[in-house]
Amino acid sequence: MHRSHTCGELSINDLGKEVILSGWVQKSRDLGGMTFVDMRDRYGITQLTFDSEDNASLRAQARELGREFVIKVTGKVIERSSKNLKIPTGEIEIKVGSLEILNSAKLPPFMIEDETDGGDDLRMKYRYLDLRRNPVRNNLVLRHKMAQEIRKYLDGLDFIEVETPVLIKSTPEGARDFVVPSRMNAGEFYALPQSPQTFKQLLMVSGFDRYFQIVKCFRDEDLRADRQPEFTQIDCEMAFIEQEDILNVFEGLIRQLFKNVKGVDLAEVPRMDYADAMRLYGSDKPDTRFEMKFVELNDIVKGLGFPVFDNAELVVGINAKGAAEYTRKQLDELTDYIKRPQIGATGLIYMRHNADGTLKSSVDKFYNEAELQKWSAAFSTAPGDLVLVLAGTTEKVRKQLNELRLEMGTRLGLRDKNTFAPLWVLDFPLLEWDEEKGRYHAMHHPFTSPKPEDIALLDTKPGEVRANAYDMVINGTEIGGGSIRIHDRALQALMFKHLGFSDVEAQNQFGFLMDAFEYGAPPHGGIAFGFDRLVSIFAGLDSIRDVIAFPKNNSGRDVMIDSPSVIDQKQLDELKIKTVN
Amino acid sequence: MHRSHTCGELSINDLGKEVILSGWVQKSRDLGGMTFVDMRDRYGITQLTFDSEDNASLRAQARELGREFVIKVTGKVIERSSKNLKIPTGEIEIKVGSLEILNSAKLPPFMIEDETDGGDDLRMKYRYLDLRRNPVRNNLVLRHKMAQEIRKYLDGLDFIEVETPVLIKSTPEGARDFVVPSRMNAGEFYALPQSPQTFKQLLMVSGFDRYFQIVKCFRDEDLRADRQPEFTQIDCEMAFIEQEDILNVFEGLIRQLFKNVKGVDLAEVPRMDYADAMRLYGSDKPDTRFEMKFVELNDIVKGLGFPVFDNAELVVGINAKGAAEYTRKQLDELTDYIKRPQIGATGLIYMRHNADGTLKSSVDKFYNEAELQKWSAAFSTAPGDLVLVLAGTTEKVRKQLNELRLEMGTRLGLRDKNTFAPLWVLDFPLLEWDEEKGRYHAMHHPFTSPKPEDIALLDTKPGEVRANAYDMVINGTEIGGGSIRIHDRALQALMFKHLGFSDVEAQNQFGFLMDAFEYGAPPHGGIAFGFDRLVSIFAGLDSIRDVIAFPKNNSGRDVMIDSPSVIDQKQLDELKIKTVN
Repeated sequence: MHRSHTCGELSINDLGKEVILSGWVQKSRDLGGMTFVDMRDRYGITQLTFDSEDNASLRAQARELGREFVIKVTGKVIERSSKNLKIPTGEIEIKVGSLEILNSAKLPPFMIEDETDGGDDLRMKYRYLDLRRNPVRNNLVLRHKMAQEIRKYLDGLDFIEVETPVLIKSTPEGARDFVVPSRMNAGEFYALPQSPQTFKQLLMVSGFDRYFQIVKCFRDEDLRADRQPEFTQIDCEMAFIEQEDILNVFEGLIRQLFKNVKGVDLAEVPRMDYADAMRLYGSDKPDTRFEMKFVELNDIVKGLGFPVFDNAELVVGINAKGAAEYTRKQLDELTDYIKRPQIGATGLIYMRHNADGTLKSSVDKFYNEAELQKWSAAFSTAPGDLVLVLAGTTEKVRKQLNELRLEMGTRLGLRDKNTFAPLWVLDFPLLEWDEEKGRYHAMHHPFTSPKPEDIALLDTKPGEVRANAYDMVINGTEIGGGSIRIHDRALQALMFKHLGFSDVEAQNQFGFLMDAFEYGAPPHGGIAFGFDRLVSIFAGLDSIRDVIAFPKNNSGRDVMIDSPSVIDQKQLDELKIKTVN
Repeated sequence: MHRSHTCGELSINDLGKEVILSGWVQKSRDLGGMTFVDMRDRYGITQLTFDSEDNASLRAQARELGREFVIKVTGKVIERSSKNLKIPTGEIEIKVGSLEILNSAKLPPFMIEDETDGGDDLRMKYRYLDLRRNPVRNNLVLRHKMAQEIRKYLDGLDFIEVETPVLIKSTPEGARDFVVPSRMNAGEFYALPQSPQTFKQLLMVSGFDRYFQIVKCFRDEDLRADRQPEFTQIDCEMAFIEQEDILNVFEGLIRQLFKNVKGVDLAEVPRMDYADAMRLYGSDKPDTRFEMKFVELNDIVKGLGFPVFDNAELVVGINAKGAAEYTRKQLDELTDYIKRPQIGATGLIYMRHNADGTLKSSVDKFYNEAELQKWSAAFSTAPGDLVLVLAGTTEKVRKQLNELRLEMGTRLGLRDKNTFAPLWVLDFPLLEWDEEKGRYHAMHHPFTSPKPEDIALLDTKPGEVRANAYDMVINGTEIGGGSIRIHDRALQALMFKHLGFSDVEAQNQFGFLMDAFEYGAPPHGGIAFGFDRLVSIFAGLDSIRDVIAFPKNNSGRDVMIDSPSVIDQKQLDELKIKTVN
């Protein structure tokens, strides 16, 4: 037997017990004739004592233990003289009677501590050591708890977990697929799913009524910090429902998760139209932890001789409350920030509402005190506030001001990681213009249903057609999205036509789905949450990488196992493929 | 709103309620001025009535409904005149006030009934219709329930569910990998995991202590009826344990599953050594629903002039109780059965213990009454029994007699699908001789620990080294297997050497794991269950195909979505691969 107890469970109630413990040497220290060893396992830390007076050779053995050695001890639970009340086992220690080294350990390449000295590359190469660190393991324990809680909630509502296939068919629409050459069908390929979209819709056609799955999905895209080639979705679909049903069920899921996993009682999730989100926040995923809503100024600033405003399609600003004291230097920093190529603004106009009540702007030449009073009224400024204004074409300036708003939110400490502001964004456009390809593409995906009242616009003003599509946003991050689906063959065919598919292409790629719609498809819709991202928000992390046990780097490499790698010629031959340079 | 209730929930307690129901038309019939429609959803069937006297045009509409139309009705719950007490809704019907056709349906290519007229090919092409049939859907609901129950059990024992990567590294050892070309690392490939073996071991090195995952795995093998290119494992690993701990935890899992999902109280799971399983059943996965154990006859049958027995390495038989009345024709069938090339026996010897107490064999020429009495004693025959005997080399004859035993079990009705006989098979050999390659390969996998007391035999008698490896068998099917792992670099290196790896090959492929063993690897071990197979046993099915929502056929094709398929030249170009003929 390797242990009678874990390193996290013995307390003052166990005094006198003879126990067996196993774990890792966290650290050890000598004090006079004694050696103290902190032994660690997943469950906690227990202090071991070795006393020369009791057993000199055993104590000598203990002095030889290195960090991260794996040991097993038997001993007696005794009361500590100097207690550590911060940990559950801090009132006791084990007076060790025998010690066995189960495995030795080389010195780890970085410290196995909450605050490590290991850089990202080293941590990834030795991920199995990085995972020993409490903060990393805690993220994965959190992930585990969330997964169980999600299933419990959905199972309780009669959702059925169904596994959909991983080896599916490549479809050029959307992001790039990973493909898998088929040996048994030479020259042909499977694709890995970007989502189980069509399968979950088929399950609705099958009458499964309520489906879910926590499932790996794959996208062969160039990677950013919060993107991984394989990622996990909470994938859900319901039949005989309307949008309102889905919003209710999944708002319930999120609230139950916050309640049961984090102990946070969320209020009802507010809802906002896409159009309002763009107008008030310049983003379809506004961070609503703080106000600082956009105020449009066209009506009050135009025609007074300031060409930047006069020539702009939109003049729009925010009130950074309490930032009137910003120095010239700080304002220059902000200007530099928004002029970076990623944001691309040309300049920043500001107005201070000084503590003494006076208004002072960077465009005093064009706007006198009376005009600035109009600004002040529009932004409801108070003494101490700083108004920041941008001008340009509507789409661009909104994006720029969104970035500035988020930056100001951060600078003013309004984006606390322990505050959670979820939001439903509704009524997304159905189509989005693709400059590059010179055609519309589906904003969500080609299976999204247009709003019935907007279908007439498909031929005349396709860009104005709204979809029965919705996103859930938390703290400025999109954590999930979905839609009511098309369940009618003719409408689905019409959508494919608008997306530039020929009839033959549509039939080749999605014929099975359109065929299925002819055999009695019920109204249905669903949603998918990005599980990695949801966990990272619960964990208060910016990147999804530390909520994934074995992530890949930005080149799609797993540096620990050194993958991808070249494969044997024999494998290529069997698959009837070859690599080209 | 599409429904106030499902089609499975209204009862006599709901009389008088105004309800909204949606579902599929299962069937309809006209009776005088009335039309009765059975409306179906996942939850049940509810009868709708349309009466010409109340509303002639509505009734006319109802007469136009075809099978599998999707409809929505509002109406009142009334008591049925002719009740059907076999279904929960059988005492009521809905007097329909309004009817809406949500979607029409073409005539399905096969009947959506428990007993369908659809052949396998048609059912697979229209899997979304096949999944509407109760028996198929019930299998998947069963699978769902088992998955939830498994997680509940393991979560309750502090196991953490960790997702391991799907894009990993190809290793030539074992079965053939599916590979995925990497676009970002041209010329290199990921592999899809055959199991998360190395990752779960690394999680043990990381101190996760108890891990599980219900996870897709992949093998590019030629397919049989019960093999799929993608399949699902219940994958588990524990640290600081010995074999006994694993057997107890997972025997507990299986018993809880039977109890909570099937309402079956399993007794303690018996254990049998591999050597005994081979000796008594000729198989490492004996079907222990029935006895009919092997009896070895060398001691009593040799030296009496019958060359078949005299020249055989092993003479071994079974007692088919109650089969003495088998006719010549039946015995010939059995002989033909075991002579088929897949089994390959050369002949069958039998002895009848007749109802009148006499013994009569097919080799009376060599064995007189007194000799046959010895046979009778060896098999403990009683009047009415039939002894069947084979002879040959040990390994082959055991396999042959195993097939004969199973066939006799089937013929004698001893293999009831509702009887469950689980069994642990223990102490598997570590290595297995590979005739083709002229070397040993790992019977389980290269990470399996030899029994410490057998390590000395590795150099001298490698075939006799036993492993700390175990399988769980139910009703003659292996449903899971695992082992205590090696956690020591030197022993792992020695294993690779015995398996024919050069040092460089071992380091290239598994260097990360051997390196990990040097940083404090705890003793650990685990098990993996074939989830598809486990569900199929719970469902009483022979094939795993009907417990998988969207299975592939024997050529690895999904005939519904028509995958695999050719992909665009652009995709091949981006991946820098080409197909060769």
